[in-house]
Amino acid sequence: MSCDSFVLSAIRGLTPYQTGKPIDALQREFGLTRISKLASNENPLGCSFEVVTACQAILEGMARYPDGAGFALKSAISQHFKLDAAGLVLGNGSNDVLELIGRTFAGAGDEVIFSQYGFAVYSITAQAIGATAVQVPAKDYGHDLMAMAAAVTPKTKLIYIANPNNPTGTCFGQTEWDAFMSVVPSTVMVVLDEAYTEYVTRPDYADGLRELAKYPNLIVTRTFSKAYGLAGFRLGFAAATAEVASYINRVRQPFNVNSLALVAGVAALADQDFVKEAVAVNKKEMALWQQALSMLNLSWIPSQGNFLCVDMQRPALPIYEALLREGVIVRPVGAYGLPNHLRISIGTDEENMHGIEALTRVLQSL
Amino acid sequence: MSCDSFVLSAIRGLTPYQTGKPIDALQREFGLTRISKLASNENPLGCSFEVVTACQAILEGMARYPDGAGFALKSAISQHFKLDAAGLVLGNGSNDVLELIGRTFAGAGDEVIFSQYGFAVYSITAQAIGATAVQVPAKDYGHDLMAMAAAVTPKTKLIYIANPNNPTGTCFGQTEWDAFMSVVPSTVMVVLDEAYTEYVTRPDYADGLRELAKYPNLIVTRTFSKAYGLAGFRLGFAAATAEVASYINRVRQPFNVNSLALVAGVAALADQDFVKEAVAVNKKEMALWQQALSMLNLSWIPSQGNFLCVDMQRPALPIYEALLREGVIVRPVGAYGLPNHLRISIGTDEENMHGIEALTRVLQSL
Repeated sequence: MSCDSFVLSAIRGLTPYQTGKPIDALQREFGLTRISKLASNENPLGCSFEVVTACQAILEGMARYPDGAGFALKSAISQHFKLDAAGLVLGNGSNDVLELIGRTFAGAGDEVIFSQYGFAVYSITAQAIGATAVQVPAKDYGHDLMAMAAAVTPKTKLIYIANPNNPTGTCFGQTEWDAFMSVVPSTVMVVLDEAYTEYVTRPDYADGLRELAKYPNLIVTRTFSKAYGLAGFRLGFAAATAEVASYINRVRQPFNVNSLALVAGVAALADQDFVKEAVAVNKKEMALWQQALSMLNLSWIPSQGNFLCVDMQRPALPIYEALLREGVIVRPVGAYGLPNHLRISIGTDEENMHGIEALTRVLQSL
Repeated sequence: MSCDSFVLSAIRGLTPYQTGKPIDALQREFGLTRISKLASNENPLGCSFEVVTACQAILEGMARYPDGAGFALKSAISQHFKLDAAGLVLGNGSNDVLELIGRTFAGAGDEVIFSQYGFAVYSITAQAIGATAVQVPAKDYGHDLMAMAAAVTPKTKLIYIANPNNPTGTCFGQTEWDAFMSVVPSTVMVVLDEAYTEYVTRPDYADGLRELAKYPNLIVTRTFSKAYGLAGFRLGFAAATAEVASYINRVRQPFNVNSLALVAGVAALADQDFVKEAVAVNKKEMALWQQALSMLNLSWIPSQGNFLCVDMQRPALPIYEALLREGVIVRPVGAYGLPNHLRISIGTDEENMHGIEALTRVLQSL
């Protein structure tokens, strides 16, 4: 007998997030040895050596449960970002806090707003909690904040915003943010996902953590998976008022963040030189990619992240597959309604040269 | 302005799971140096050294996302337990899979059945998803399976069962299980949580993994946090039919299990000698505790786990607090409706001697 009929109807229609192809999966399938993964916006430099050392020191004590309150990491985040520790929620990656926020504030019959081309986790979360997903058309591939504000109805509970956005790399400034927040009702929670904040270069960036004091209905999320290089550990956090955080923490699994992630986060925060180096390498290597793409007569969406969303001017999936055979993993974004684009993460110099050479060969063979 | 009014009503009433007091929290508060934590049913032997070695080998690659499909670990679980890998769901601890199951099959208006004194995560999950929690009175502190079956209504979607149960240690046998499953409708999902299965000594234990082939509406959950000693990593899994697993996997966050837990699980499964030793030490040390408790004229609920739920014959909270001042952390279970009991995890010989001496002193001082 099939269990179809007793699964929740919202879940039956759910399509899970498509992850980047893991390196060992490609090795298994194609028997390749030289593989460059430019698919998941990871930090190509790895993580700080301080993180490795801190983890080694606790590996023999891993039979104990983690500190469910995350005391030491919350203290470190609180000090580094000058935030009230009572307003923090730690997550198993920022995906976890984004989902917890959805489950705290929205349910069946409620509306959740996000942008066309917005990060996939917003629509997946809205669907999984049985809420109505309201996708607002983008403007130049970016968030049309005023249109999003105009989409608010009495049923709206949450607005998810990514700045910069993934997979497009688009980013808005302080003026647009101020205008948006001035019209959003204070009964709607605004979730500002700043996973790529460390890479931003535009001087008028609206830093969410600085904005928290102004808006009790603002929740800012950050991740350690990108510039801090801790994707494999799973660590992110949300910052909000103490009251909002206390509600989200009720829904949180008591041990959602593992002990190594807690220790890695403290060590990673302490090594800001590593973050600066990662950001510098990203800037230099992104320029290399842009030069190569120009020579290939390809255009890209201007990006404030650690990736470029490139217009291949034809269906991108065959190019993605041809690149796999060359040992280069990038990310198709057809599921985002961008079937002609590929998202390319900025790697190390060696990985980028591999990627550029492979892309050049693949395009020549078409 | 308070956000009270726009938090989901089910969440407003939620009381989060109370975790065991972490060792460093006690150190901070009381300035103690000798601390024995007998509070969270952890493995007092730590974890297999193979786990430590396997983790060290990947620490420098942690900037990459985990394999979201958990290919290697699912293969290892599949081989070790002789299960179809397609029927597996990996979780960030078994708490994660228990919650994912709830979110897949039950929502507002549905009923979720569990036993009085049943593991707290069942009622928390039912509440968080807005379902109606139906608690069935226990029989001799254990699950009254026939009463639970009798509580099924057309609205029942899930029955959570722990065997052995935490915090009581009670365990039922094959005959009771067979009788129960013969009357539960096949449209109700039965979740059999076997977190403590490795410690069971009763010969007529109904091993859930063996039962899977009989019942398409059965989901068995297992953890690596107890006998395998991986609590700090966060790792558990559910086993069911491939169809049921595919639905639960849709709700799962794509990277819910971190890279170190994936590797630790494979290494831990390969070292069954470690598990055998942990089980043997538990048996021997539990006998020591039982002897000491008898001498203190205290009784306990017969336990098939790695802990004893002890009747203090008076309000247990003051005894818990006096033990903290002695550097011994045990678990009060008043929130389970057992205000006179304390749950004591079986530790190493040294920890148990510390616990027994401290308890003796505390009881004498009352």
